[in-house]
Amino acid sequence: MHDPKHPNPETHAMTRTQTPPTPTTTDSPGPLPLGLSRAARFAHDQPISGLIHIAFNTPGIISLAAGLVDYDSLPLDEVGPLTQAILGSNDAARAALQYGTTEGFDAFRETLFTHLQQLEAQAGGTLPDTCSAKDIVVTTGSQQLLHTLTEVLVDEGDIVIVGWPSYFVYTSALTSFGATVRSVDLDDDGMDPAKLERLLEGIEAVGQLHKVKAVYVVDYHQNPTGITLSAERRPRLLDVVRRFSEQAGHRIVLIEDAAYRELTFDGNAPRSIKSYDTDSRHVALCQTFSKPFAPGLKTGYGLLPEGLTAPVAVSKGGRDFGSSNLCHHVLHRAMVSGVFEKHAEGVRAAYAKKLAATHAALEEHLGDTPGVTWSRANGGMYVWLTLPESIDTSMGGALFNRAVEEGMLYVPGVFCYPTDPTRTPPTNTIRLAVGVPTVEQIHEGIARLARAIAAVTPPLG
Amino acid sequence: MHDPKHPNPETHAMTRTQTPPTPTTTDSPGPLPLGLSRAARFAHDQPISGLIHIAFNTPGIISLAAGLVDYDSLPLDEVGPLTQAILGSNDAARAALQYGTTEGFDAFRETLFTHLQQLEAQAGGTLPDTCSAKDIVVTTGSQQLLHTLTEVLVDEGDIVIVGWPSYFVYTSALTSFGATVRSVDLDDDGMDPAKLERLLEGIEAVGQLHKVKAVYVVDYHQNPTGITLSAERRPRLLDVVRRFSEQAGHRIVLIEDAAYRELTFDGNAPRSIKSYDTDSRHVALCQTFSKPFAPGLKTGYGLLPEGLTAPVAVSKGGRDFGSSNLCHHVLHRAMVSGVFEKHAEGVRAAYAKKLAATHAALEEHLGDTPGVTWSRANGGMYVWLTLPESIDTSMGGALFNRAVEEGMLYVPGVFCYPTDPTRTPPTNTIRLAVGVPTVEQIHEGIARLARAIAAVTPPLG
Repeated sequence: MHDPKHPNPETHAMTRTQTPPTPTTTDSPGPLPLGLSRAARFAHDQPISGLIHIAFNTPGIISLAAGLVDYDSLPLDEVGPLTQAILGSNDAARAALQYGTTEGFDAFRETLFTHLQQLEAQAGGTLPDTCSAKDIVVTTGSQQLLHTLTEVLVDEGDIVIVGWPSYFVYTSALTSFGATVRSVDLDDDGMDPAKLERLLEGIEAVGQLHKVKAVYVVDYHQNPTGITLSAERRPRLLDVVRRFSEQAGHRIVLIEDAAYRELTFDGNAPRSIKSYDTDSRHVALCQTFSKPFAPGLKTGYGLLPEGLTAPVAVSKGGRDFGSSNLCHHVLHRAMVSGVFEKHAEGVRAAYAKKLAATHAALEEHLGDTPGVTWSRANGGMYVWLTLPESIDTSMGGALFNRAVEEGMLYVPGVFCYPTDPTRTPPTNTIRLAVGVPTVEQIHEGIARLARAIAAVTPPLG
Repeated sequence: MHDPKHPNPETHAMTRTQTPPTPTTTDSPGPLPLGLSRAARFAHDQPISGLIHIAFNTPGIISLAAGLVDYDSLPLDEVGPLTQAILGSNDAARAALQYGTTEGFDAFRETLFTHLQQLEAQAGGTLPDTCSAKDIVVTTGSQQLLHTLTEVLVDEGDIVIVGWPSYFVYTSALTSFGATVRSVDLDDDGMDPAKLERLLEGIEAVGQLHKVKAVYVVDYHQNPTGITLSAERRPRLLDVVRRFSEQAGHRIVLIEDAAYRELTFDGNAPRSIKSYDTDSRHVALCQTFSKPFAPGLKTGYGLLPEGLTAPVAVSKGGRDFGSSNLCHHVLHRAMVSGVFEKHAEGVRAAYAKKLAATHAALEEHLGDTPGVTWSRANGGMYVWLTLPESIDTSMGGALFNRAVEEGMLYVPGVFCYPTDPTRTPPTNTIRLAVGVPTVEQIHEGIARLARAIAAVTPPLG
């Protein structure tokens, strides 16, 4: 159950995307402005931060907007004893409380590599022979990894290709690098390799292929749509990237964001794209402990292609020379003791129940509403809802306002479309996230949403 | 006692400065290079990383080079129960294991603000009325704070002024931003405001004052010299910064790196420069838990001047949306329970003993050697040694090689001088760091150093 005494989760609700007001070069009071850098002026507030204020200031609202994880499946009983075990041993405590190394300590990286091998084996694949634990870098959540990969690859004006829609915190970070974002439609099988190919051909035709640095794919239960890239498309997507790399004159990196991989309910997650990267030259596989274990330990990790580990470590090293060593030691012990795997099973069960409840509630309340469809993921925490084109889901629009009046909050789908200069996002989609609400709240929240939709739908003529 | 069974501290020894090999745009094997960004090509290996290899590959060597902290005064008995207490309470555990916020949670920031007020009160000062807990940002160590401050202030070609010598990890990061570094001599009272003034006048005379963005001062027991900025110079330094800000047309930010403030042995640390920043418009006060508590929790924090909190939080938010929330909760509990203050006392006692041993050993072994002088800090962990100008302390030079043969390692002082295009660093200085070695190892290490110095000193004619 969600504990109402816990500091209002809605205040944390949009943390993933919370940013303070846009800095400007003027400030008051006082005569002199700060001399902010270009980078500071590039950075900007996320439009979605407006949602936080609504969530915070509307008593009783049910948020199906927050990207946080389920409170009840946090490892509340596990992390205490794990930490105590480390700190009860003099040698382990001394190691955990001292500075670590930028990439994370070697035994942890070995354990992570073994873990990735096991995930691959479960899916009938193997990791490339050409990679090893030396290609692993541990980061402050996978967000720091995504950001650092971009930093070492992308100059202002370079092109990064993402899904349409895609994970908006990353696409927003791309904007802060001055990258040009281009996008490829998703269908039920994820990003279409044929469409990626056509996009790259178009970019090549205008002489811009040399600017393409990366293709970003969230390939398991994608945020925001819940879509998983099909097994069949995985090697094909990589083939396209390989082929156009030859023409670009450099290796285009395929950033495989597998944040939700371990939240696959039936255990049938497909092999990673990385498993097809036999010479380990293109795919940066990014994973995290935030979803299958606990965000509070803020630990992500990547298995990087040849040549990329050193620049990523140099960039991270200059910034923080390593994330929290204590957290790494706790997670290492969680993995080698089997606590992690056992816990992840419980997390999967919790989300399976929540997503099933969401799908059932949608069926019950919106199953008969013409023009309303939604994604049915078998993992993760997202449902992507498409409404009739006549209904505008945007913030401040009739539906959004009515939903807030009814007492529920969603993320307008338009926030999840990257700023692709060639496209205009549709305005009739919604992201529902069910990490925080209970099953009861999900049912009630969707009933409220359905009432709001009914209220703004013109009567049939 | 240093535990010889602990993973060789020398392998960790230079962690603060360890970086992998320089990335280049070519790599092998394979036909295609990575398309690395300009930022990745700017970043570079620290020359000091060569020291790590020596430390690692020389059995029995005593390192007086490592910037790590004392293993024996880590909070080995404190962090376990603190963590257990948090994770034993359902509400606290749920908060600590969930995502936090980019700046750190509010109660923690309030506690840090109160702590800073107490430090100031102990020194007979007060924090400016104009600042509050809202001006605090918690970061992944103070390194991330220094880096982020620089990122939001400094464009390529901008000027940052630092001490000569200064903390080399920061000055190296400045280079990666493409900043021009200028420097001001230190004497026993730290950076001389009159010399800073003359430097700024010179910069103004060539029409470059508008490029000066920050003055960086490590003002308590500085790394590498151990020097503390005198009480009398603190307001004067700020006055110079204020005055030239008017002429620059923007606020020059004084980055006050107070990492070693809480390692002042006699409790008589002077007021912070921040305490003189009455309108809170110039000084960014940077502190850390790594020195007075434990680096493994990797937590630093800053009290920022008006207008700077938002851009720093936006920049950090885009990169990681917050450091480890669990670590913040542990440290918060350490502070409110009094565990932190009690522990810091023990840390001060440990370093006082080590620095006293270092000074005594230097007196014993080098007190009669003509032309050899050293700093006598009353806090922190550094001793700065000046040898006769005829002795070159550089890596690979006669003294360095002889010291390694004798079985000791130091940091050549030349590594601690920033790349100031107008100056050439002296080659007869040495940084000794006594965080890791025991008192016995310090004595033996300095005896070895004295033998090496004797061996390379030409006989008096």
